[in-house]
Amino acid sequence: MQAARYTGNKTFDVVEGSKVAPKAGEVCIKVGFAGICGTDMHIYHGVMDKRVSIPQTIGHEMSGIVAEVGDGVTDYSPGDRVVVRPLDHCGECPACDAGHSHVCHNLKFMGIDTTGAFQSFWTVKSRTLHKLPENVSLKQGALVEPLSVACHDVSRAGLKAGEKAVVLGGGPIGQLIAAVAKGIGAEVMVSEVNADRLAFSEKLGFETVDPTKQDIGEVVKEWTNGKGADVVFEVTGVQPAVDTMTEIAAVRGRICMVAIHSEKPQVNLFHFFWKELELVGARVYEAKDFDQAIDLISSGKITIDNFISSVSPLDKIGDAFAGIDLNPAGMKTLIDCGAEQ
Amino acid sequence: MQAARYTGNKTFDVVEGSKVAPKAGEVCIKVGFAGICGTDMHIYHGVMDKRVSIPQTIGHEMSGIVAEVGDGVTDYSPGDRVVVRPLDHCGECPACDAGHSHVCHNLKFMGIDTTGAFQSFWTVKSRTLHKLPENVSLKQGALVEPLSVACHDVSRAGLKAGEKAVVLGGGPIGQLIAAVAKGIGAEVMVSEVNADRLAFSEKLGFETVDPTKQDIGEVVKEWTNGKGADVVFEVTGVQPAVDTMTEIAAVRGRICMVAIHSEKPQVNLFHFFWKELELVGARVYEAKDFDQAIDLISSGKITIDNFISSVSPLDKIGDAFAGIDLNPAGMKTLIDCGAEQ
Ligand SMILES: [Zn+2]
Ligand SMILES: [Zn+2]
Ligand SMILES: [Zn+2]
Ligand SMILES: [Zn+2]
Repeated sequence: MQAARYTGNKTFDVVEGSKVAPKAGEVCIKVGFAGICGTDMHIYHGVMDKRVSIPQTIGHEMSGIVAEVGDGVTDYSPGDRVVVRPLDHCGECPACDAGHSHVCHNLKFMGIDTTGAFQSFWTVKSRTLHKLPENVSLKQGALVEPLSVACHDVSRAGLKAGEKAVVLGGGPIGQLIAAVAKGIGAEVMVSEVNADRLAFSEKLGFETVDPTKQDIGEVVKEWTNGKGADVVFEVTGVQPAVDTMTEIAAVRGRICMVAIHSEKPQVNLFHFFWKELELVGARVYEAKDFDQAIDLISSGKITIDNFISSVSPLDKIGDAFAGIDLNPAGMKTLIDCGAEQ
Repeated sequence: MQAARYTGNKTFDVVEGSKVAPKAGEVCIKVGFAGICGTDMHIYHGVMDKRVSIPQTIGHEMSGIVAEVGDGVTDYSPGDRVVVRPLDHCGECPACDAGHSHVCHNLKFMGIDTTGAFQSFWTVKSRTLHKLPENVSLKQGALVEPLSVACHDVSRAGLKAGEKAVVLGGGPIGQLIAAVAKGIGAEVMVSEVNADRLAFSEKLGFETVDPTKQDIGEVVKEWTNGKGADVVFEVTGVQPAVDTMTEIAAVRGRICMVAIHSEKPQVNLFHFFWKELELVGARVYEAKDFDQAIDLISSGKITIDNFISSVSPLDKIGDAFAGIDLNPAGMKTLIDCGAEQ
């Protein structure tokens, strides 16, 4: 079997790995496809070298086929087509106690804090698995994880059919959020400055606005007949969007914080008071979000194939990462890890 | 009849006013007591001179007895003991359409944007009235409006019995929030720097912390067994509290924004993402908050008399305002406008 390993400083090696036999409660998966996430790009750029254990196999957006099950695993059998929800919680902290294990105080993110999916076989706890329906391909399955992020964001924002949502930032997650929002019957506008991403949004049927060329406050006001946006998703991580999010939200509007703001931006808290806004943080996903993501693909409510920009073989993983740096407006690059469709 | 008028630059005159006959749908109230609000203090200090119409009778925290009703008023009769919910909405904007008339786009706040209660008789729309039960005195009734603010804040935060809440700021509204929180069965800690206010909190049975003397992060961590606060009320309007609010909140904790931040403070949005926090703005109140406030007083779940610091006659209103400047740690000063108890 092959295993790609991040070895630091924008480099990977691809070595002969060793299949890990599943222990009790574990499952060994023959990996089909694994997507490259923004977080993987951060690791590639060296900014997370303190968190990963170099050399490490990373990757967490995957699909595959069950190859072998450990003792006590009764829900899965060899041949099952599956995806992994890559979260490992402690089961003992106040967050786990309160039923929020996805934001466990001691959460391990598989593929970052532990070994990941950019290899031929990946052994994981069976509790992390979700089955893929027959009409969802392994390629499509590799998009379930990022789509689940979007489902979680939309769910946290409480977005409902018929409401109007503005997504600030048209990268992969922003576009997936827009797709989920549309998929559940909301009207969506994507705010983005990159022409390629704007074109992608238009192709998918979203309203668009370029805030460097138009007054987004006026555009949203007109689009909503003076009401403002019912929901705003902040997916950029930059100060101008933080100013915009409170400006364009309706009275009692909800703002979902998806972006990671490592600096502390200035926030117009007066708008929160005056318009009784809500700000809701959203991190990763819960099991129900994976179920919804799989259903949105399977039912055809989202055409997930639009989001696959390219597919590279595992032994060309370094080139695939470098290619994303050269084409930041692309959506999702998949690594073909070998399992047959 | 007497009417006090704010005439600018920390001065009032008290003149012979004229009773306004109630038009259709209106009620003329003989005013009992009217409290001095933080907003009234802002007006007194001249910072709202653009919004008020000098000379103007201000005041909006009041109780009284119905003196006369206009055509079509069937719910109220002379002699009814009442309080006024001092909000006048337009009925036509998107917020009113959505059922949120208390944050109407064109909201007029009675006693600020229009004539107020510091006079012998006040004529208002009957839809703004709530009846007082027999066991609630007119003095207590004058506290219903600020207590309704606290009820609204607690309701917006979704605070439940058994949860732990930290109130940042022990002024009148902060202490009333703490009282409501305790009244509905939550455990409460008040964070405050003023010794008199801390003593007031302790007298009312709240936990207290002085963040200039103790590490509030550690204090809350210990108090909540490592979980963090279920709910945080930000009632200070200062940057250090904005830093504290995200630090001490539990995973999935709710933060209620009560304070008016005229500057845009820096907010740790990473905490919102990481702990899936919620920030909820709260402004004024709804009819149900007035109902709850009256019930909390009437049922004895809150001993509202603790909050009355002093009572002054209407013709000494200037001294009463000046006295608050001299004793900023006091709770509520009432103006006796003349109606018999
Ligand atoms: Zn990811
Ligand atoms: Zn845990
Ligand atoms: Zn007030
Ligand atoms: Zn209105």
